[in-house]
Amino acid sequence: MLHTSTDTAAYQRLEKRFSRIARLGDAQSILGWDEAVMMPAGSSAARNESLAELSQILQDLLRSPELADDLAATEAETLNDWQRANVREMRRRYKRATLIPADLHRQLMMACMECEQAWRRLRGENNWTDFAPLLQRVLELSREELKILAADQKLSLYDAALERFSPGLRTEVVERIFGELRGFLPDLTREILQRQQPHEKIEGEFPADVQKALAKQLMQKLGFSFENGRLDESHHPFCGGTQRDVRITTRYNSNEFLSSLMGVLHETGHALYEMNLPLDWYGQPVGQSCGMAIHESQSLFMEMQVCRSREFVEYIAADVQRSFAAQVRQPDTLSAENLTRVVQHVERGYIRVDADEVTYPSHIILRYELERGLVEGTIQVKELPSLWDEKMQALLGLSTLGRDKEGCMQDVHWPGGAFGYFPAYTFGALIAAQLFSALRADVPQVREQIRQGEFSALQAWLRSKIWSQGSHLDTLALVQQATGPLSVAPFRRHLEERYLKS
Amino acid sequence: MLHTSTDTAAYQRLEKRFSRIARLGDAQSILGWDEAVMMPAGSSAARNESLAELSQILQDLLRSPELADDLAATEAETLNDWQRANVREMRRRYKRATLIPADLHRQLMMACMECEQAWRRLRGENNWTDFAPLLQRVLELSREELKILAADQKLSLYDAALERFSPGLRTEVVERIFGELRGFLPDLTREILQRQQPHEKIEGEFPADVQKALAKQLMQKLGFSFENGRLDESHHPFCGGTQRDVRITTRYNSNEFLSSLMGVLHETGHALYEMNLPLDWYGQPVGQSCGMAIHESQSLFMEMQVCRSREFVEYIAADVQRSFAAQVRQPDTLSAENLTRVVQHVERGYIRVDADEVTYPSHIILRYELERGLVEGTIQVKELPSLWDEKMQALLGLSTLGRDKEGCMQDVHWPGGAFGYFPAYTFGALIAAQLFSALRADVPQVREQIRQGEFSALQAWLRSKIWSQGSHLDTLALVQQATGPLSVAPFRRHLEERYLKS
Repeated sequence: MLHTSTDTAAYQRLEKRFSRIARLGDAQSILGWDEAVMMPAGSSAARNESLAELSQILQDLLRSPELADDLAATEAETLNDWQRANVREMRRRYKRATLIPADLHRQLMMACMECEQAWRRLRGENNWTDFAPLLQRVLELSREELKILAADQKLSLYDAALERFSPGLRTEVVERIFGELRGFLPDLTREILQRQQPHEKIEGEFPADVQKALAKQLMQKLGFSFENGRLDESHHPFCGGTQRDVRITTRYNSNEFLSSLMGVLHETGHALYEMNLPLDWYGQPVGQSCGMAIHESQSLFMEMQVCRSREFVEYIAADVQRSFAAQVRQPDTLSAENLTRVVQHVERGYIRVDADEVTYPSHIILRYELERGLVEGTIQVKELPSLWDEKMQALLGLSTLGRDKEGCMQDVHWPGGAFGYFPAYTFGALIAAQLFSALRADVPQVREQIRQGEFSALQAWLRSKIWSQGSHLDTLALVQQATGPLSVAPFRRHLEERYLKS
Repeated sequence: MLHTSTDTAAYQRLEKRFSRIARLGDAQSILGWDEAVMMPAGSSAARNESLAELSQILQDLLRSPELADDLAATEAETLNDWQRANVREMRRRYKRATLIPADLHRQLMMACMECEQAWRRLRGENNWTDFAPLLQRVLELSREELKILAADQKLSLYDAALERFSPGLRTEVVERIFGELRGFLPDLTREILQRQQPHEKIEGEFPADVQKALAKQLMQKLGFSFENGRLDESHHPFCGGTQRDVRITTRYNSNEFLSSLMGVLHETGHALYEMNLPLDWYGQPVGQSCGMAIHESQSLFMEMQVCRSREFVEYIAADVQRSFAAQVRQPDTLSAENLTRVVQHVERGYIRVDADEVTYPSHIILRYELERGLVEGTIQVKELPSLWDEKMQALLGLSTLGRDKEGCMQDVHWPGGAFGYFPAYTFGALIAAQLFSALRADVPQVREQIRQGEFSALQAWLRSKIWSQGSHLDTLALVQQATGPLSVAPFRRHLEERYLKS
């Protein structure tokens, strides 16, 4: 068949172009990591210019008319399922780069930068008055952007917002799922809090290097390869770098080691996903992760389903005791029993990032209701403090009146224009529970394996169901293929089993 | 004068283009630093692709026909002295980018990366057999490149090699200067070794963090700004990063602190040069350093002329004693007297980077003779182990037979394709001695200032003579302007004064 080699000529050219884009994207990612972890303050202006130049080149590569021609030409080419999905993802990137007018893109970027920078200062000062107009500007420009995206994709405004972060997720699904959660979470939370056993506070001095050694050892156990990744320190913990060079950061607090450790294990979930994406598709859009709901499902699978389980704590207890024997005030606070109580402690609080898995969905439902109203124009920025307070009282029985820094000013997402991101956290938690429930059905001895520090069956299962799948399916289709349609039930059963039956 | 704004239109376009090139070059530099200091081994293939892509884009920017047109158009424009020099440096970069066929350039880059990465492993294994073919490939491709450069510049092959690193340096000058050194160094070395006072070995355990704190304190004293730079660890110490983000690396040995400290102070000399290049010309070719002989003169000025002087040792002795009081076995080995003897200790050895300033030129003469032969085709790669041994015996009375890791495998330069670099070290040493001699004439109290830890006059002098000059003159012209024609005499006097008269 002489024509085979030219059959997919347009597609082949696209693959080449996107490989180039990915290589430059890798460079950007490492420079971004460096900026957060390594860069001295005095070079930030020069670094910004460097990154802006790289970003310009990437935009030019994405906006080229030849790329548009090739995308159109692939319609007539014979492509397999993954190649088709790859073209779909290429088109998504091309549209994002070309639909938004350069001027709007620039204004929005500037507004976000200004709002984020002010937020770092104003949040600490609890200064809503000066913050509100900056957020208003970000919202206005974001709505303009979403209108363009929504019109092109024939979606509602908030659907277009969701689509940017969790492809395929729709408002009606969020409504239904969050409605179910609202139905049972308040009673369940009350019951859990009533029956919760008190824990002993773990007091002592925990040196950063000992914390780091323990974290690295457990990362490796879970499958993180230090041949293709690092663990470092930064002000805001994150998982960055590239698929072949995954870089986790954390912060160490010498008075308390479990938050940092659980944070590292959470980021390890993100890292394992990145590290195990299909290498055959490295550099191609379809080889990249499926979106933020699935990404959060991988971090929450590791943190919530695996590492905060009684079995995992029993597995690590001896190492924890050995690591901190000399530093802890009362050695018996490091018993598996007490460690489990600490990592499974439930408490209503103001701050989302400090919340446990039982109260976390309430934080997200609140943000979803507010950001949907903001995006749809039914809620005004100036109403946020009072609406936040009202909803916090209804959902968690806490008032944030006059304490906006612990209320509507606590998150960086809206200042950064990331309307539509928040649902990914709770969908991630539900998907994680559903995956773990399916894993238990497929590998009945998995909890005993966790107790033994044996993670290979678990890894193989996630690799086949999620990691190897890249983004050839959208969020809900991937869940469906792996475990059946997404349901709240496994998450509910997980909470009941962990917090009521022990 | 209505025509003023367009008078230099071509030149202005060139400045803009070279600013873009510099920003991407900065990105490359940080990624290069990351590769040596941070990158996990498993991502080296992906990193290579990322760097190759960036390099391709830089090449495309340099190879554009509009750039050639603009370079030609500047001939008719009214430019000042520095702008003219900037155009000259732009043309040098344009030629380097266009003369070399893209395919040869790519092959050479990949061969160097492969050879360098293998070298890191094979050197430790003393594995010449696997290393030789990789080096052979680098040499072959380098010679192809040099033939093209030489033909264009009407230079000999080895002159073209020198020109890449130390503009204006020529083989005949190297021959003459190295001839003079060969004339007096053997006798002088013998005499110095005979009259050398023995020192007491400084024994103890010197923790890396204490070494690092001391190094950072002295770096700052010499003028290094940690607002625009870092100190880190790497296998092979270097000074990298960018002008606004200068990154020094070192290695710490817990049994011995002076090698690392002197290494850091050496790199600080490089760093001060980079940090103090003319900011008005940031991103322009003429604002960059003048070449490697001048660069090495700045590091050797700091290390050899300043920091290994008796005056500097007297200045730091108290801090050294305080830092290591608890760790040193015999406190009196940290006396200024003994510290001076240690940092001025002369000994014939295998390793260039460990060599003192008296025997160092012999290491360079050996490499110069070999690399000139390799480049000119009169020496084959396979002959290196035996020729190295032969020349080491002749120059320093040491045999490297069967110990290639301490012989012809010790340096990264040839694996990296940097044939023509080595003479820069010894020219740097000569220039450093000549500069210090001129500084003493201009600032007679400078040695007393060093003893007091007072470096501002010294910094101001170097800033005016060297740092602020960028590359608007070539190597020997810059030396000439600063201190008169380059001569071996100040270096010889320096050695006699330091090693024979004390």
